[in-house]
Amino acid sequence: MSYIREDFLLQNQTAKDLYFGYAKEMPIFDYHCHLPERQILENKPFSDVFEIWLAGDHYKWRLMRNYGVDEKYITGEATNKEKFVTYCRVLGTAFGNPLYHWSQVELQEFFGCTKEINEKNAEAIWDECNDYIRKNNVTPQSLIEGSNVKHVYTTNEVFDDLTTFEKIKEKGYKFTVTPAFRADKIMNIDAAGYRTFLAKLEEQTHPIATLADLESAIEARLQAFIKVGCKASDIAVERVCPVTEPADAEKVLIKALGGNRPTLEETEVFKGYLTYFLMKLYARYGIATEVHIGAMRNNNAVMLEKLGLDTGFDSISDTNSIGLLSRLFDRLNSEASLPKTIVFNLNPKMNTEIMTLIGCFQSSEARGKIQYGPAWWFLDNKVGMEQHLRDLTATGHLAVFVGMLTDSRSLLSYPRHHYFRRILCNYLGTMMENGEMTTDLSYVGEVVRNICYYNSVSYFGMEA
Amino acid sequence: MSYIREDFLLQNQTAKDLYFGYAKEMPIFDYHCHLPERQILENKPFSDVFEIWLAGDHYKWRLMRNYGVDEKYITGEATNKEKFVTYCRVLGTAFGNPLYHWSQVELQEFFGCTKEINEKNAEAIWDECNDYIRKNNVTPQSLIEGSNVKHVYTTNEVFDDLTTFEKIKEKGYKFTVTPAFRADKIMNIDAAGYRTFLAKLEEQTHPIATLADLESAIEARLQAFIKVGCKASDIAVERVCPVTEPADAEKVLIKALGGNRPTLEETEVFKGYLTYFLMKLYARYGIATEVHIGAMRNNNAVMLEKLGLDTGFDSISDTNSIGLLSRLFDRLNSEASLPKTIVFNLNPKMNTEIMTLIGCFQSSEARGKIQYGPAWWFLDNKVGMEQHLRDLTATGHLAVFVGMLTDSRSLLSYPRHHYFRRILCNYLGTMMENGEMTTDLSYVGEVVRNICYYNSVSYFGMEA
Amino acid sequence: MSYIREDFLLQNQTAKDLYFGYAKEMPIFDYHCHLPERQILENKPFSDVFEIWLAGDHYKWRLMRNYGVDEKYITGEATNKEKFVTYCRVLGTAFGNPLYHWSQVELQEFFGCTKEINEKNAEAIWDECNDYIRKNNVTPQSLIEGSNVKHVYTTNEVFDDLTTFEKIKEKGYKFTVTPAFRADKIMNIDAAGYRTFLAKLEEQTHPIATLADLESAIEARLQAFIKVGCKASDIAVERVCPVTEPADAEKVLIKALGGNRPTLEETEVFKGYLTYFLMKLYARYGIATEVHIGAMRNNNAVMLEKLGLDTGFDSISDTNSIGLLSRLFDRLNSEASLPKTIVFNLNPKMNTEIMTLIGCFQSSEARGKIQYGPAWWFLDNKVGMEQHLRDLTATGHLAVFVGMLTDSRSLLSYPRHHYFRRILCNYLGTMMENGEMTTDLSYVGEVVRNICYYNSVSYFGMEA
Repeated sequence: MSYIREDFLLQNQTAKDLYFGYAKEMPIFDYHCHLPERQILENKPFSDVFEIWLAGDHYKWRLMRNYGVDEKYITGEATNKEKFVTYCRVLGTAFGNPLYHWSQVELQEFFGCTKEINEKNAEAIWDECNDYIRKNNVTPQSLIEGSNVKHVYTTNEVFDDLTTFEKIKEKGYKFTVTPAFRADKIMNIDAAGYRTFLAKLEEQTHPIATLADLESAIEARLQAFIKVGCKASDIAVERVCPVTEPADAEKVLIKALGGNRPTLEETEVFKGYLTYFLMKLYARYGIATEVHIGAMRNNNAVMLEKLGLDTGFDSISDTNSIGLLSRLFDRLNSEASLPKTIVFNLNPKMNTEIMTLIGCFQSSEARGKIQYGPAWWFLDNKVGMEQHLRDLTATGHLAVFVGMLTDSRSLLSYPRHHYFRRILCNYLGTMMENGEMTTDLSYVGEVVRNICYYNSVSYFGMEA
Repeated sequence: MSYIREDFLLQNQTAKDLYFGYAKEMPIFDYHCHLPERQILENKPFSDVFEIWLAGDHYKWRLMRNYGVDEKYITGEATNKEKFVTYCRVLGTAFGNPLYHWSQVELQEFFGCTKEINEKNAEAIWDECNDYIRKNNVTPQSLIEGSNVKHVYTTNEVFDDLTTFEKIKEKGYKFTVTPAFRADKIMNIDAAGYRTFLAKLEEQTHPIATLADLESAIEARLQAFIKVGCKASDIAVERVCPVTEPADAEKVLIKALGGNRPTLEETEVFKGYLTYFLMKLYARYGIATEVHIGAMRNNNAVMLEKLGLDTGFDSISDTNSIGLLSRLFDRLNSEASLPKTIVFNLNPKMNTEIMTLIGCFQSSEARGKIQYGPAWWFLDNKVGMEQHLRDLTATGHLAVFVGMLTDSRSLLSYPRHHYFRRILCNYLGTMMENGEMTTDLSYVGEVVRNICYYNSVSYFGMEA
Repeated sequence: MSYIREDFLLQNQTAKDLYFGYAKEMPIFDYHCHLPERQILENKPFSDVFEIWLAGDHYKWRLMRNYGVDEKYITGEATNKEKFVTYCRVLGTAFGNPLYHWSQVELQEFFGCTKEINEKNAEAIWDECNDYIRKNNVTPQSLIEGSNVKHVYTTNEVFDDLTTFEKIKEKGYKFTVTPAFRADKIMNIDAAGYRTFLAKLEEQTHPIATLADLESAIEARLQAFIKVGCKASDIAVERVCPVTEPADAEKVLIKALGGNRPTLEETEVFKGYLTYFLMKLYARYGIATEVHIGAMRNNNAVMLEKLGLDTGFDSISDTNSIGLLSRLFDRLNSEASLPKTIVFNLNPKMNTEIMTLIGCFQSSEARGKIQYGPAWWFLDNKVGMEQHLRDLTATGHLAVFVGMLTDSRSLLSYPRHHYFRRILCNYLGTMMENGEMTTDLSYVGEVVRNICYYNSVSYFGMEA
């Protein structure tokens, strides 16, 4: 029997009362993830626990690398079972790491397996989970519905085909699937494949020879996204670039169109303008913006060459772009064009800077118009979430927080919502028991319910 | 009945023994605040709880904005009562925010109101507090004396009229009121109203056509401040500027005198020199310097236009000026001109950098000559204070700490001293109960008493 | 009787079981310290507690300065006893400071003195400790062996004479003493004494007129170090410099050889190349690299002039060199020349940046090939260690951590290993009791044993 108990992370009675009375049964609104919509549409049953649990999960790969495991057993030619056993061995002593909790909870929630994950139990777990998968029809639909998920926002590029979303609608699932609009591949003008991406956009719209062409193409695509239900957009930058003039951005675009790779400076000129343009566009269409700041990507060139993007070789940047973020927000705000925005920050040392900045741009357009996004990626763990809650409550207003998301490529990540909810309830329950806030359970429970679900529903304008 | 109990924030018996036995009854020395001295002199009774509690408090405004309240109910045309009720509604769920604690404690301490602040109770609280105010003669004097305050340092510009302080002396209050000397408006040479400020200084001294004129004018004013009891000065900068030569600073001054706005670079040249000049001057006159680093002000141009300065649109800067601070201190120290200095830092990520730097410039001129100022503004909360104490004790010496201040524009802020004292006693009491320090209560209590009051008295050279 | 109990820092039963069952009796491998090897060889008995405990310890000096003690009683002409009494007075109220714990534990462990350190007890402690020293033959050997130390790595400059290490081997001590290789004095090309250092290197090798000469001289010395058992090297930089080309580095070297002091820019060119060269060399010889980042040294010019280097006037830098560190590691890794590396970071705000970066460069060459070094210098305290453990476990793998070292110039510092072990056991024990990890004591105990000793033994390739 694993160490996970019913009251996992709930360290006092009030925390338990809050969690079991108000949080546990709330539906999930996963307003940012990286699930492939095609997988949800096709809805194929899974065949083994490796495929569903380990394949493609770069969080787990990183942990194995940190332990010194040979790449053969991570992404190499070892068998699925060898990789599974290796991961169990590594995980067994990863005390304090979020994967140590998540992995255990995932096996328990999705396959009813309560064996403690370690080297000794690895084989038995392999058998038990695969047995479960063989006996039960485990599909994307069953996993999502079984997790009480109501809404899923995938992340899609500006040029992505959207027919999959229409077809999903016709399937009669108990949840909605909607794309969030992302133009990063159009913004990152120094990327090797830039002209290919632009060609894809042209295919969906019209030839692009000027900045105005690009802007109208992007707008046309946003309209198409909105037709299939899009309410949110996504921008990822290592750091915020200064806002620039369209004429300067166009020069860089023309250069790239001519097949020449822009310099770093030119790239920043282009990105600075496009960030501004996109947010202004989003404001006009009432689309919320999710800005992800602070990832330093692809540190290891050898492994980038070998495994490609998003394989576990990114890290936290030391970006200091708070002044630029201030000026970007101020410019948009001065032009009455600042959209609802959720700022996701990857560097915890910047928490208070960003928290206090966003407090300068609130308005009555929405409760918590500018949000401080939940602890993200490397911070998506107990330490990171607790610090996020402390920093959020100390300088902002907890009750309007839109809460958790998975940001995941995996269908098994929904327990992270419950992980967050337990930490939230424990945080509040502890303050209640310590005499630091009201002891009115139902009053606090209402706030918990809102953070779990209703705040995001109303923030994005969905049905509850 | 609100959640505030007698043992609020005191989580074990030793913490309670320390607080009730040593801290609670100590007088208050508020060595940095923004109270208008004229209000203290005039000593007019207050007429309602809005006027005394909500009007002019940009901390409370920010919280309402974070919740999505329309500006009408914050600084707009809504009635006082509507604004009061709105604030109570917003505050009711602001768990973890310092205002959630402060507001509750303030109503309890000053108006005997123990109702929990929330939407439901708002009207009743409005009535109860106003009733109290009508029945009692609530004046600045009664609030200050009732809070057991012995000394108040207001913050005054170099050109402020000082006769108010002389008149206050004659009133026979049980507390002293003394101005801290601030030359920020003379230092911020790129500000729109710079020449107006300079004209005010000239009015109090002599015509200013050269840097030497400016310096002698400042010195004359400092002497005038000292005549009315001044012991402290104040400098606020977003980041420390490099020390520059007088000739270069003079060029910038001449430009500004000619009605031309200096560039950002020129401004920094001027500020770099003036910071150095001022601290040197303060050292000569034995005046302690309070340096406030790290505020990024006026982020929201629309609201600046609408509401003016200090209305809740400032944030924490990501300043990295520790190298410059080192060189400034080293230069002054090399010239035997480093005054007693309290560094207030707004960015908690810089705590350990500053703590370890000031440890390099201590001397036997004063116990704790260079101080790490208490958690300030956005950090003036439980999280910020606890981190401050942990960082202070880990790399410095707690027993010489000059302790808390209000930094407030409000006469109701004195409970923040008790808030800090409770956190201090809980911090020490917990270590005592955990076997991490001596269990000698009176020995530790002596240190508590010093931090609450005697350290600041002796640091500034006041009477106890 | 002092407050130190047997269960010091162990706040629950599981923590105690882990510490007493698995951690306490493990040998010590001190893989980075600054002990003078000559002192170990000579093995002279100590004559009084001042000499062994206070003389030369700049941590203790800093604490006294923070309290406002006159330099006379720190490094000046006061008697040893006066200095001792002064330190006891200052320490008595230094609650929360690591010295408050260390000093008490040191007197207890090495001289059996359990009196609480404070002004009142100072004289009695002085007498008791000196009495102990007179009655017992207290020598370097007795202190090291009594602390159950198996391996000591001193830190030696590239030009140091190594015969002492050979002679120590012949003494039959129960511990080994091996030099770690350090080329900092050859890297810091702008230092006043650079040519003197180079001359010392030439004396040990051959004339140096070109970069190639320098490189071969360094390599020859590394080979000599390896002959006496060297397994580790050390590099200290305030911030990481960009990797440069040998031709550019050579220009700077030629300039310095000609007696001209390089500019700051030139210095960084030289250091950037040499860091790269050294790490590549270390990789070739299988030598682990210990990189120390983030100290801002010699802030106080007056005291530097008076007391020299390493006397307590250093502080934490605000270096932001994570991007450069990424490129340095990537370059070396691309050339299959990234050695085992332990990154010691002095600025806690950079913990997560570095933790996530090193996770991008792991490999199966070693378990935990790139290590996040333990909390160091100003962070070597309870707060710093706990944050280190939280950050390490949240984004890395605890079980491969090489654990603690003293980094000390003093023979009394070994209790810091136990201080760390108690904090480690308390950290794990608390998670176990909170239901956040397995309750299998012997399984967790094995991890504890590895972190205390076996991980470093296998990381550096020593005998256990």
